[in-house]
Amino acid sequence: LESKLPSVGTTIFTVMSTLAAEKGAVNLGQGFPDFECDPLLVHAVTDAMTRGLNQYPPMTGVPVLREAVAAKIARLHGHSYNPHTEITITAGATQAIITAILAVVHPGDEVIVLEPCYDSYVPNIELAGGTVVRVPLTPGTFRPDFDKISQAITSRTRAILINSPHNPSATVWSQADMLKLQEILAPTDVLLISDEVYEHMVFDAAKGQVHQSAARFPGLAARAFIVSSFGKTYHVTGWKVGTVAAPAALSAEFRKVHQFNVFTVNTPVQYGLAAYMADDRPYVDLPAFYQRKRDLFRAGLANTRFKLLPSEGSYFQCVDISDVSDLNEAEFCQWLTTEIGVAAIPLSAFYGDGFDQRVVRFCFAKKDETLHAALERLAKL
Amino acid sequence: LESKLPSVGTTIFTVMSTLAAEKGAVNLGQGFPDFECDPLLVHAVTDAMTRGLNQYPPMTGVPVLREAVAAKIARLHGHSYNPHTEITITAGATQAIITAILAVVHPGDEVIVLEPCYDSYVPNIELAGGTVVRVPLTPGTFRPDFDKISQAITSRTRAILINSPHNPSATVWSQADMLKLQEILAPTDVLLISDEVYEHMVFDAAKGQVHQSAARFPGLAARAFIVSSFGKTYHVTGWKVGTVAAPAALSAEFRKVHQFNVFTVNTPVQYGLAAYMADDRPYVDLPAFYQRKRDLFRAGLANTRFKLLPSEGSYFQCVDISDVSDLNEAEFCQWLTTEIGVAAIPLSAFYGDGFDQRVVRFCFAKKDETLHAALERLAKL
Ligand SMILES: CSCCC(=O)C(=O)O
Ligand SMILES: CSCCC(=O)C(=O)O
Repeated sequence: LESKLPSVGTTIFTVMSTLAAEKGAVNLGQGFPDFECDPLLVHAVTDAMTRGLNQYPPMTGVPVLREAVAAKIARLHGHSYNPHTEITITAGATQAIITAILAVVHPGDEVIVLEPCYDSYVPNIELAGGTVVRVPLTPGTFRPDFDKISQAITSRTRAILINSPHNPSATVWSQADMLKLQEILAPTDVLLISDEVYEHMVFDAAKGQVHQSAARFPGLAARAFIVSSFGKTYHVTGWKVGTVAAPAALSAEFRKVHQFNVFTVNTPVQYGLAAYMADDRPYVDLPAFYQRKRDLFRAGLANTRFKLLPSEGSYFQCVDISDVSDLNEAEFCQWLTTEIGVAAIPLSAFYGDGFDQRVVRFCFAKKDETLHAALERLAKL
Repeated sequence: LESKLPSVGTTIFTVMSTLAAEKGAVNLGQGFPDFECDPLLVHAVTDAMTRGLNQYPPMTGVPVLREAVAAKIARLHGHSYNPHTEITITAGATQAIITAILAVVHPGDEVIVLEPCYDSYVPNIELAGGTVVRVPLTPGTFRPDFDKISQAITSRTRAILINSPHNPSATVWSQADMLKLQEILAPTDVLLISDEVYEHMVFDAAKGQVHQSAARFPGLAARAFIVSSFGKTYHVTGWKVGTVAAPAALSAEFRKVHQFNVFTVNTPVQYGLAAYMADDRPYVDLPAFYQRKRDLFRAGLANTRFKLLPSEGSYFQCVDISDVSDLNEAEFCQWLTTEIGVAAIPLSAFYGDGFDQRVVRFCFAKKDETLHAALERLAKL
């Protein structure tokens, strides 16, 4: 049997979570909260199950949830999506991204990814028969290099994938960045897949920082699949529900593939989320909630020889390890997990060629006591 | 934008369910129960959510559920799958099937489907770049025609998809059928995708009829992805959880694609199902439960001019409409929904060329009162 994805092994997240469990390490590797979600959300899903909402929902998602998503995007970003033709509920953001790719990428099409990037993008493009074009973000700062992006666009470019707030670097694209991308794409018909799963985790609002959704830029929104995730916003990564917002013509193609991929998504979870979203509070409170954890974690790391990179958004904190160890990133993460008892993720895992710039990623979506326990161990370094 | 699936529209199930809702028709079209699931199952999921089991499960599914599935297959079919390397939990059977196809079908590979077949198979093969080879089941009886199947196999055949109990025809493959398939495939390395989502709905056990899972035939099991669905067995089609059982080498390829498609499946639902499965009763009772509904529905139809086809398994009943109407199947279903107030599905929707043999499908997974209401309306014919 010839593999369709010969170079794919187990994801780094699974590898590190398994090692962390084996070694009893504090797991700051894989990105998921170790605290509970709001009990009101559990009640909302239970209520839907109890009311007998357990059969197939509409293929595109339950109308109340699609309407809540459209209303939220309109309120936050001033762009109106038609909930019936332009919003689709997915089995998580990963399924949304592969579905968008399968829907628009023809064999031989080029798709641009900005490295480091989430590990599903490249295999997704390969499964569609597309050619992956890797453009690095600027090493060290992880800012987009628009000259390099421009140069990568050819007549065969079908789409570009972007991700802000960014996993793994925790950078956030500015309004100027998005305007620049809009300008570059304007003369082309390159599609945009905008992975915005950390949309509600943008910090330092006091300094004017906001999530610059592609929905805010008409020239981008008109060509974009905007992907988000309920799991990350509501502390239920295991529920596996996401959304795609896209113009009707793109949504129509998306849905053709979606209906023959997962067909549709868990009904009571959808109704529960819709009921819970009726109140804005859950995501409005989120930046302050995570900013406090970020600051707590950064303050603790200040006592170590790690060099702290900025964390503008997401629930990740990257550090430069060069003053701490001579190991490469992957070996360092293994060693840190095994010997110090704290799991982290090497950034090299987010590059096709394993580019190693001596940076590793911690996830601070953890109880304060977990962060304190990790910091205590890291203080030994 | 050039469509990847130019000939795909909205599925017939969505079309008919929408029309049924609009016209206030009794919906015997789309296959889903209109009654509640066991409250114990709702409790089991609620319990998991309340215990805080809401974050990412292992990519392949939670171990207790994989173990329960392997144990069930061993008990029922005498074939041992290793739950850690050979069982994967999926976001429904549809996602299982597309994932198996994307994992093994290379561009240019041929894949055999037996028509009539479920409407996702063909687009799934097309998305993988495969060539669809359509072999008809015998018109009228819907039995497999093994001469035609043998003739369809070439050196480029990668896989064959089978489905028993069969949607839409409600036929069940016999042991002789499975042995014949095993014999035909023996000299080839053609893979088998066996869609067994109605595995627990096989009727007339008294007459010796049993579900002949591919797991019972070593020569098939060694090359098979066996797909099943919790939604159909436990009356929760909207929960979207399925399974794939396959030898380790096939499972490894399956999981490479799965981890970059949905990554994993709703955690509390998996734990809830595992707890519920600890008791065999739910699926052991199922054949009698549905056989009674089948018999009730058939008895009612005996008073009409519909000719009843056998219903050996699944929750479907097909009827020949030639003595009732001159309309083609699709028109007849529209008319029946609109004028008589009962929705059905035309079998032509399960053929690539819309082959019309004057047969339509009813779903009897409905409350007795729903079946009585439908029968009362159908009595007018
Ligand atoms: C799907 S597991 C990975 C979770 C995550 O998004 C991350 O850790 O980067
Ligand atoms: C996924 S909707 C279709 C349900 C079903 O399996 C059927 O009606 O055939």
